Amino acid sequence: MTQPDASKVDLFASTAVSQWKINLDRLNKMFDAFGDEELQQEIAPGKNRIFYLLGHLTAVHDRMLPLLRLGMRLHVELDQDFLTNPDRAAPDRISAGALRQAWTVVNDTLTRAIEALPAEAWLERHDAVSAEDFEKEPLRNRLSVLLSRTAHVQFHTGQIRLVVKKS
Amino acid sequence: MTQPDASKVDLFASTAVSQWKINLDRLNKMFDAFGDEELQQEIAPGKNRIFYLLGHLTAVHDRMLPLLRLGMRLHVELDQDFLTNPDRAAPDRISAGALRQAWTVVNDTLTRAIEALPAEAWLERHDAVSAEDFEKEPLRNRLSVLLSRTAHVQFHTGQIRLVVKKS
Repeated sequence: MTQPDASKVDLFASTAVSQWKINLDRLNKMFDAFGDEELQQEIAPGKNRIFYLLGHLTAVHDRMLPLLRLGMRLHVELDQDFLTNPDRAAPDRISAGALRQAWTVVNDTLTRAIEALPAEAWLERHDAVSAEDFEKEPLRNRLSVLLSRTAHVQFHTGQIRLVVKKS
Repeated sequence: MTQPDASKVDLFASTAVSQWKINLDRLNKMFDAFGDEELQQEIAPGKNRIFYLLGHLTAVHDRMLPLLRLGMRLHVELDQDFLTNPDRAAPDRISAGALRQAWTVVNDTLTRAIEALPAEAWLERHDAVSAEDFEKEPLRNRLSVLLSRTAHVQFHTGQIRLVVKKS
């Protein structure tokens, strides 16, 4: 390979960002294929509803905005029902339509900020590690958050896939 | 950040390799916690057995050796039962013990080779893309395989998690 190092850093970042988008697109297609009532299905008997996972993923991605130091949260109000509490702890307080809207806005905002981040900035610390600790543990960087959240998308995609009708 | 670019490339690669190992370790702990008979459980009624997913993941990781151009396959014989065919297409031809052994050897071999790969080599093409196509599509590199297989581990971890007893 004859690329200069700066271009190599760009390629590393582009590959990671591309995987984020590919995995998110795949999950989005699955959510879109469910009608609002179908979101009420459980992924397996007695397990989380798809509706809960949609809210859970929205809250987790919303938290990525400050965690990656890319901006303020947009939907703090989702945390109690979709992060703190398990599914069905209380009657749903948000409609399927409003939840889908939050999911779309959070991901669009987040992904735009992710795409705009300069390649080298992925190696800077994420917000949950102090500058002192980061000196000793340089892998606790923004990139590690992006990769682990990409994997988190797939964790739940694998579950939702269990209730997708094969065509 | 005041690191030279070469060190940046190293950090990108180390972060990605670290995520591979973290996700694989988590799945390994889950497999280890199941007794051989428990591997026969389905992840949900009528869905794949854990046993099948163990074989499936072993075959997929075995194929990463040539796909990443890191070496020859070790367990081609698993493909028919765990990749080509769905679960329970035929009676099991491998014992749980032998399958666990294959899983361990494949991952140890693969992860050692992954850790030994120089950082910049992650930007070289993987084996399923031609040199010509890679010129036009530089994101079809080894790193994209590592990241997508890390996500694949999580896809099935999310499913297996459904039958893990919460402590």
